[in-house]
Amino acid sequence: MTNMLKSFFKTLTLSTPSIYSVAYKQNKSKLRHLTAVFFGSGVVLYSLQKNEARMANINSKSHNFMAEPITSWDVLSSREDDMKTKMELFIMKVQADFCRSLEAEEESDKKFIVDRWERKVGGGGITCILQDGQTYEKAGVNISVVHGTLPASAVQQMRARGKKFRSDKLPFYAAGVSSVIHPRNPMVPTVHFNYRYFEVTDDDGSTQWWFGGGTDLTPYYLNEADVVHFHRTLKEACDKHDDSYYPKFKKWCDDYFFITHRGERRGVGGIFFDDIDLPAQNKVFEFVKSCANAVIPSYVPLVKKHKNDGYGYHERQWQLLRRGRYVEFNLIYDRGTKFGLATPEARYESILMSLPLTARWEYMHAPEPGTEEAKLMEVLRNPKDWVKI
Amino acid sequence: MTNMLKSFFKTLTLSTPSIYSVAYKQNKSKLRHLTAVFFGSGVVLYSLQKNEARMANINSKSHNFMAEPITSWDVLSSREDDMKTKMELFIMKVQADFCRSLEAEEESDKKFIVDRWERKVGGGGITCILQDGQTYEKAGVNISVVHGTLPASAVQQMRARGKKFRSDKLPFYAAGVSSVIHPRNPMVPTVHFNYRYFEVTDDDGSTQWWFGGGTDLTPYYLNEADVVHFHRTLKEACDKHDDSYYPKFKKWCDDYFFITHRGERRGVGGIFFDDIDLPAQNKVFEFVKSCANAVIPSYVPLVKKHKNDGYGYHERQWQLLRRGRYVEFNLIYDRGTKFGLATPEARYESILMSLPLTARWEYMHAPEPGTEEAKLMEVLRNPKDWVKI
Repeated sequence: MTNMLKSFFKTLTLSTPSIYSVAYKQNKSKLRHLTAVFFGSGVVLYSLQKNEARMANINSKSHNFMAEPITSWDVLSSREDDMKTKMELFIMKVQADFCRSLEAEEESDKKFIVDRWERKVGGGGITCILQDGQTYEKAGVNISVVHGTLPASAVQQMRARGKKFRSDKLPFYAAGVSSVIHPRNPMVPTVHFNYRYFEVTDDDGSTQWWFGGGTDLTPYYLNEADVVHFHRTLKEACDKHDDSYYPKFKKWCDDYFFITHRGERRGVGGIFFDDIDLPAQNKVFEFVKSCANAVIPSYVPLVKKHKNDGYGYHERQWQLLRRGRYVEFNLIYDRGTKFGLATPEARYESILMSLPLTARWEYMHAPEPGTEEAKLMEVLRNPKDWVKI
Repeated sequence: MTNMLKSFFKTLTLSTPSIYSVAYKQNKSKLRHLTAVFFGSGVVLYSLQKNEARMANINSKSHNFMAEPITSWDVLSSREDDMKTKMELFIMKVQADFCRSLEAEEESDKKFIVDRWERKVGGGGITCILQDGQTYEKAGVNISVVHGTLPASAVQQMRARGKKFRSDKLPFYAAGVSSVIHPRNPMVPTVHFNYRYFEVTDDDGSTQWWFGGGTDLTPYYLNEADVVHFHRTLKEACDKHDDSYYPKFKKWCDDYFFITHRGERRGVGGIFFDDIDLPAQNKVFEFVKSCANAVIPSYVPLVKKHKNDGYGYHERQWQLLRRGRYVEFNLIYDRGTKFGLATPEARYESILMSLPLTARWEYMHAPEPGTEEAKLMEVLRNPKDWVKI
């Protein structure tokens, strides 16, 4: 590693969040320029994320990360077997793998922009965005690793879900990856996934932990083979762990992504679960890993298959209208968005990266019966079993 | 009135909501075609709203209404001095006046489409929409007159605002007019207003009533003279009734239209108030009338002045981004929208007519310092006193 790179990482570690962000971008562009002279282009962004000396002890695959992990390598190394470490390194890998896999299908030369941010009151995140590309109109892949004291509203929400806490001031730790991909072509569905790990410590020192997450698909035009492929891939990931998971989490997904006032679902579902703390921490982690690792095989083939499909003005307008519905769900009903935005010092730009680049609302729009648009509406109103359970 | 028109109104009165809507549209288009033969075009839509025989007793100006009032003329005539009648006829007039006044500035030949709807569980409304015009990208003016039993969530919300009710099952009556105008040209601001009258009857037969409402402006580019004109017109309307109203309701408006997660206001404010039940019913009604009558003189001159201003791609993109913020406020924070959508049998299309035709979200967009866009952001973050108080 060159001295320049070493001093660059030093800057990162020492600087405050806002200075950090500027320093990161400035150094990155300087480095990109400089190294292009020595090595040619392409290799540099990858090299930037390397910190080989420290990471060697932990995970030989971490060189692919989009940026430095949020927790320092020293701390990560000191608690290798702790779920906090395992989850942080896993979501870093999921983020990097998904970004690379998506970039391979981008038809322009656009790449993900990497925005590493710190949270004043504990932790931070890495937001990767590819905006206004040819394949992707807006693609966001975010990881966050945050800790601190739970706000009262969150404690209340968790109690309402059945959690038993003695104290009201609860130290917490949360690590998660979340992503929404809005492609340009209306024949390519939007995908969303989120996998998260939570730890809360009560005043007697006891710790409660759980995992949550899910993956779901939002097509603009219904291609049944695509939906079957998507659900089948998720089912296979679930079945490896427990036969009861897919049917249960498929239904949970259909129930959750529901736009109540319209009586329709956001999309054709997938899987969704929360508060999973059985049968054992490592078992649940293995299940979550299977689910997150199923994202690429469930979705990227659909991008590849349809990204060059023909479409016209009519299909684009329908896509924008459906994106309006996506915005309605996310801003009115989605617990993650509501909870996130209500948190003090919320990193709202990372929460709202899920919103499409463009959306449209027409008064009383309804597709003509018998059209492809009406066919989609039918399954949004009456969810189907896509895979034999 | 021709026999055809008479039978048309008969159809309206007898039909169910959904049949009604179809019948109304079909008849309207038939009538438009037929009468064009006899009278030429233009007169017909106005004639349609006439029901001279019945209305003569009540209000000689009602021939201008966009559709038949929600409450039957018989009932309205039977309680001429009741505030319910006075408010319904007033909001009908406000709707018609505003629609005509806006139509006069529309550069294409588009007119407001009139959608009269009925609410299964009591009352109904009239939604007027002009969509995809040249002057107006989306303009909506809605009145609703609804009654029934308050949902528990509404009772709870009202109690939290200090209302004292003995019962939990409260019959209510609400009449209001609301409007959002999203012009095409980014140099023309968006305007919103809403004026409403509420009655709740407790189990001892006592009735509580109050008025609420407000008018506020959302510019994309800051023209200080426009904002001063807007606020001055509202202040004059307030000052006729009570010198303390404008300063109090201006501040209430700045506090209300706040996008908390972004720390910025939706626009440059105006006036906002709720739960006004003093000094006396007729006095408050006169105040509300002054406010609603100030909408046209406060806003339409700005449309006239700027509708043909030059602008380019850059200004359009900024307008779309600001419209994204408008959507965020309305879907996340606006009490009216949240309350409306949570009501059973909500007429969501009329509630969501406030959303723009198109909106945009870019990750981490921030205007360059010193630009016109940054100048707007400054006053959205730090509201100004536009008129000497």
